[in-house]
Amino acid sequence: MSSRHLIDLTNTFIRSRVLPIDDEFDGDITAAGGDALRIELQAEARDAGIFGPQVPVEYGGHGLNMCERAPIFEAAGYSLFGPAALHLAAPDEGNIHLLDQVGSPEQRDRFLAPLARAEMRSAFAMTEPAPGAGSDPTLLRTRADRVAGGWRLNGMKSFITGADGASFFIIMARTSGEPGTPGGATMFLSPATAPGIKVGQHIPTMDRSMLGGHCEVSLEDVFVPEDQVLGGVDEGFRYAQVRLGPARMTHVMRWLGAARRAHEVAVTSAVNRRAFGSRLSDLGMVQQMIADNEIDLAATRALLMVACHELDAGERAPMSTAIAKTFAGEALHRVADRAMQMCGGLGVSSSLPIAKIERELRPFRVYDGPSEVHRWSIARRAVRAIAGPHS
Amino acid sequence: MSSRHLIDLTNTFIRSRVLPIDDEFDGDITAAGGDALRIELQAEARDAGIFGPQVPVEYGGHGLNMCERAPIFEAAGYSLFGPAALHLAAPDEGNIHLLDQVGSPEQRDRFLAPLARAEMRSAFAMTEPAPGAGSDPTLLRTRADRVAGGWRLNGMKSFITGADGASFFIIMARTSGEPGTPGGATMFLSPATAPGIKVGQHIPTMDRSMLGGHCEVSLEDVFVPEDQVLGGVDEGFRYAQVRLGPARMTHVMRWLGAARRAHEVAVTSAVNRRAFGSRLSDLGMVQQMIADNEIDLAATRALLMVACHELDAGERAPMSTAIAKTFAGEALHRVADRAMQMCGGLGVSSSLPIAKIERELRPFRVYDGPSEVHRWSIARRAVRAIAGPHS
Amino acid sequence: MSSRHLIDLTNTFIRSRVLPIDDEFDGDITAAGGDALRIELQAEARDAGIFGPQVPVEYGGHGLNMCERAPIFEAAGYSLFGPAALHLAAPDEGNIHLLDQVGSPEQRDRFLAPLARAEMRSAFAMTEPAPGAGSDPTLLRTRADRVAGGWRLNGMKSFITGADGASFFIIMARTSGEPGTPGGATMFLSPATAPGIKVGQHIPTMDRSMLGGHCEVSLEDVFVPEDQVLGGVDEGFRYAQVRLGPARMTHVMRWLGAARRAHEVAVTSAVNRRAFGSRLSDLGMVQQMIADNEIDLAATRALLMVACHELDAGERAPMSTAIAKTFAGEALHRVADRAMQMCGGLGVSSSLPIAKIERELRPFRVYDGPSEVHRWSIARRAVRAIAGPHS
Amino acid sequence: MSSRHLIDLTNTFIRSRVLPIDDEFDGDITAAGGDALRIELQAEARDAGIFGPQVPVEYGGHGLNMCERAPIFEAAGYSLFGPAALHLAAPDEGNIHLLDQVGSPEQRDRFLAPLARAEMRSAFAMTEPAPGAGSDPTLLRTRADRVAGGWRLNGMKSFITGADGASFFIIMARTSGEPGTPGGATMFLSPATAPGIKVGQHIPTMDRSMLGGHCEVSLEDVFVPEDQVLGGVDEGFRYAQVRLGPARMTHVMRWLGAARRAHEVAVTSAVNRRAFGSRLSDLGMVQQMIADNEIDLAATRALLMVACHELDAGERAPMSTAIAKTFAGEALHRVADRAMQMCGGLGVSSSLPIAKIERELRPFRVYDGPSEVHRWSIARRAVRAIAGPHS
Repeated sequence: MSSRHLIDLTNTFIRSRVLPIDDEFDGDITAAGGDALRIELQAEARDAGIFGPQVPVEYGGHGLNMCERAPIFEAAGYSLFGPAALHLAAPDEGNIHLLDQVGSPEQRDRFLAPLARAEMRSAFAMTEPAPGAGSDPTLLRTRADRVAGGWRLNGMKSFITGADGASFFIIMARTSGEPGTPGGATMFLSPATAPGIKVGQHIPTMDRSMLGGHCEVSLEDVFVPEDQVLGGVDEGFRYAQVRLGPARMTHVMRWLGAARRAHEVAVTSAVNRRAFGSRLSDLGMVQQMIADNEIDLAATRALLMVACHELDAGERAPMSTAIAKTFAGEALHRVADRAMQMCGGLGVSSSLPIAKIERELRPFRVYDGPSEVHRWSIARRAVRAIAGPHS
Repeated sequence: MSSRHLIDLTNTFIRSRVLPIDDEFDGDITAAGGDALRIELQAEARDAGIFGPQVPVEYGGHGLNMCERAPIFEAAGYSLFGPAALHLAAPDEGNIHLLDQVGSPEQRDRFLAPLARAEMRSAFAMTEPAPGAGSDPTLLRTRADRVAGGWRLNGMKSFITGADGASFFIIMARTSGEPGTPGGATMFLSPATAPGIKVGQHIPTMDRSMLGGHCEVSLEDVFVPEDQVLGGVDEGFRYAQVRLGPARMTHVMRWLGAARRAHEVAVTSAVNRRAFGSRLSDLGMVQQMIADNEIDLAATRALLMVACHELDAGERAPMSTAIAKTFAGEALHRVADRAMQMCGGLGVSSSLPIAKIERELRPFRVYDGPSEVHRWSIARRAVRAIAGPHS
Repeated sequence: MSSRHLIDLTNTFIRSRVLPIDDEFDGDITAAGGDALRIELQAEARDAGIFGPQVPVEYGGHGLNMCERAPIFEAAGYSLFGPAALHLAAPDEGNIHLLDQVGSPEQRDRFLAPLARAEMRSAFAMTEPAPGAGSDPTLLRTRADRVAGGWRLNGMKSFITGADGASFFIIMARTSGEPGTPGGATMFLSPATAPGIKVGQHIPTMDRSMLGGHCEVSLEDVFVPEDQVLGGVDEGFRYAQVRLGPARMTHVMRWLGAARRAHEVAVTSAVNRRAFGSRLSDLGMVQQMIADNEIDLAATRALLMVACHELDAGERAPMSTAIAKTFAGEALHRVADRAMQMCGGLGVSSSLPIAKIERELRPFRVYDGPSEVHRWSIARRAVRAIAGPHS
Repeated sequence: MSSRHLIDLTNTFIRSRVLPIDDEFDGDITAAGGDALRIELQAEARDAGIFGPQVPVEYGGHGLNMCERAPIFEAAGYSLFGPAALHLAAPDEGNIHLLDQVGSPEQRDRFLAPLARAEMRSAFAMTEPAPGAGSDPTLLRTRADRVAGGWRLNGMKSFITGADGASFFIIMARTSGEPGTPGGATMFLSPATAPGIKVGQHIPTMDRSMLGGHCEVSLEDVFVPEDQVLGGVDEGFRYAQVRLGPARMTHVMRWLGAARRAHEVAVTSAVNRRAFGSRLSDLGMVQQMIADNEIDLAATRALLMVACHELDAGERAPMSTAIAKTFAGEALHRVADRAMQMCGGLGVSSSLPIAKIERELRPFRVYDGPSEVHRWSIARRAVRAIAGPHS
């Protein structure tokens, strides 16, 4: 199928089938039906030929690379429920990518295949409550101790997206070293039913479009057999980069769609309202907001594509993904904020879909690494690039 | 009572009595008990000697002028429920001011006295759904037609804060001219029980701390007797300025308290968390956010006091109040936004009170005139001041 | 020659031959020798095989398209004298492009060929003193009246870059309609020696790297024969777009190089200085400036390449060039401003090359259309794209 | 004399006598005549009764406190030459203040009296070339060693404002401790004619309105007798604060005047130019720039007055002066930058006085402590105020 055709089909499906539900439930996916809704929409997406644009072809998807998926993900992200409907939502999308890169044949059969077909959901358990791993992953405190036939995990996880209802977890735990030192992390695969895993409360965050919420997860003497180690022991931080680089870019793609919708709603509203003897859209200060939104959307898209090209070429692309993520996290929120301002009272109400989009976009400046951590990393790389590798 | 003593009592009351309820109900005043809660807290505030700092002394308040009330309102605003608890919340606070300035002796007895004593609530009905009065008040469409003994009002109002549960309304209606032309507006007092007044749905906005919500109100052949005209016929826009100048400043005072709380919570959090081998509060990028918050809070307070001095000197102060409102609307939201960023994942959750404060502050950039309208007005005044009155 | 090789040669030439002179004369090209310096450096560039990257092959250049020339122009722009040295400076570069697109065979021989070979310089005379053509080109007042065998031009031009020393002018004059109405402009070619053309004073602007300055030019009964009309009569505004779209992008390329230099100088300085017990480059607030510079440079380059791809595909690209120009005009100045701040007192002195770069970049937010005019145009296009062609 | 009268006289003098010379010489005080011009204008200012608003009455000035001097200094700063003309320019103004606070009776007679009467000029020699004292004053490397009857000073100073032509210096030198450790600095008074003091080259900075430039000064075995120690030994950093708090505020006052002039020139220009069928001053994006300028000017003035009230009350005011300096340094440059943008091509030329004002204002973000150092200090104070003195 041509890329243009896939985009058109996605646009049609999102607007006709997904947006009406999204708007009816003000972007609250749990209130709208949760997994039942997801399953229903995914079936329809399959029928429409648009399921899993990035899912490997062997599992029923389109197997698109990063550059190809960008416009599709943006089209899906136009609705807050679109990513779930097309099976390209976080965290499953990133977990599929990681398992596809690193999983053993047995792990592929047991975990990747049903996840890729959307027969189950998954979660990625890295973040911990303070003073554990967060912006600074080296603070990792969850421990994995060797026992006969495998490992025993103990620790607390927090902000685990999609944990409630996940069939399995990818768990990051420390296999060597002490909190505050790098290295020594390993990834473990574990069914949610493993004894000792307990999904706790949903942390009540601003955003509401993630299936399974952001949850606390406690691990108490969780046994993981040797063959469920994902990749090599002590290789966890390296694999996290395998997952996080592309995962940040797919986040950008999806949120780009949401921000674009906020902008288009605002422009349409500004065209249809009058004040001070003019359409709002003809007033200079409103034109400035419209133009700044166009600039922010275009720059986000341009930086995204630069990073996607590098990733598709097999590079790790740490600089270009950090730049794209940081810029997007701030720019897309600005877009929603200006859209809100253009619509006045309606903008801050749920009469328009702008407030709900703003509510989803703000946390993106924090999730997947706050802007400050990315800036720190960008600056260090810049210093080395300019002043030499030893500086 | 000395000013310092009143501030201390207010701080104590807010922290011990009001904040716990505010935090338990995540700043949702309706969920926390609505008017029943207000009445209970106001009784306690009376016992504590801090009720109605700005309420005229004859009605049981402290009769403070603008400069005196600024630190008290800020202290009350430290909790989202504080303004209701001390009887200094919008819109009653502005309506008390207006009635005190403009009301006839009979109107004072019937409307001002019970309102000032907090025996009832009120609402100010000016804004209309598009294409009516909003940012551009000259678009006013609600009509008042002369009939025997008074006036008959017809029209639709929208975003009427506190309408649900209000005992009476101050209604702005057109008594001459056509929508799009200035002049010709008049203010009318009417009990909420007057036939033809219907309070419709609450507009579901981001903010949740206003008693009685933001409602639609329909007016169908509402009869208002002559002696319930507030001030002179066709003088409505002039009186609106009497109300709006100070009302904008008291908004700034209250939101200044809320923003300060978000900042203090974030600084405390940053002192107690570590990453990258340091307290968060010792990292340069976090220090920059802390400093920028201090600067924004200080500048807001400084501009506020300039405007209050002018108002206390009997000036209309259109320039200084517009500048203070515009700066505060943007700066205080920046403060909450940075506070959120400093706290990472917790910042975007309701584990901390920052997200709820941000949710209240954002609409302030729109309510009481969006920044763009104030900038337009500031620019026009600047041009006349610099290039001469005829330019 | 491979693109990579051309870039390497350019970098070497700029650093070894051009930067030393640039720095010795603090970026003042007139003080450094003016045309004599240009001719000398161009000869060396020819010998080095890097002359005229964009000049058509038939005239001795490399004939690179927009995408190919971007990195070369950036490498040349690393020195403020680089563009002149490689014969890719404004306004000649844009005039070559325009003549190549629109010129008749005779015009190519007489004007394009010697210009492309850098045997002469040229100027583009569109802007006028107020109340004439500036940000709003429809205000064009210079008139061209039909006379026997051609046209007679009268008017005043201002800010004509490169006028002093130019061998010929492309003059925009009104051939129909009145100032304030669109249409009716025509482009005329005229040798500088034509009777009635007088190059007046250099307007003393902040920037000093443009050969021939920004001059006033008066036109008094200047006769232009029919065969020196460039393109069709009344087609001037359309041709201006042919010139201005690419010309704006080549400006961005060159200034990108200059801004990058300011950034690299500042990072190197921050690596080598210590304060507060740390290298400056390890302080969080400095890292934030470094990272923001990297982001601004990357986003400028990304937006530039989007526009170049469209232009190379034969599109007019009005939206993407306006976005890239507006973003670059502001972002590149921010880069220089942050570089200056990172270097403290040295940053604001001519001990480092940052102040001179800042001085060149600031006017770019005004030249070739101020940001506000581009935003107005972007907003209008966005409204039509989103709300329909008739909105 | 009433404060209002003094302001009026100052405005008249500045506009009639000082601005014409300032504009003729594009703000270059050396080109305009240097000390000869200063002496001439100061004589006229004395005749006009406006000399030395802050100079102690015993030395012929008005002895105004900080709050009183603010509007006068702003009025004087309206011209870049105004501060010198009224004898309220840096560094003499700050040195007069310091000597008046700390000087012994003999030091007052010998140094303060002739300086206060403007019979000589002075300089404050603290800053050193890297790796010495700059943003981080603890890096102080200039040493003072005890010798018979006094001290012997050795070291290099840099960016010493007003050094060329100064009759005496206040020199900060280390009397104990090592570079990188606090404490141990002492202030020394020394005539410029003392053997071993050599004023070197002027550092070529962007700004040109400071008499005597910013110079390198070398100290080679400079003998300072005991009675020329200013204040106590090892008390230098504490005295520096006595000088710097108020000196920062008087900088803000003066630059406020300059920024206001840029703004007024731009507004006047925008009223008189037309584009797109409208006066520029009626276009929304221009109105936004005008309004933002008014807001920045008003906020600067409001923060300044808060700090001045504290200083006049005898407080050290480290928080409010740091906030006012940081805000002003950035806001006033924004004002000049927007003024430049409003005026287009003329704005970046010396046809209008905006470019020269921008050139003076930019370094203020660096001089007297860059914004980053002030933010660091503000953040540390905020942390202690919010989280307790031991945090």
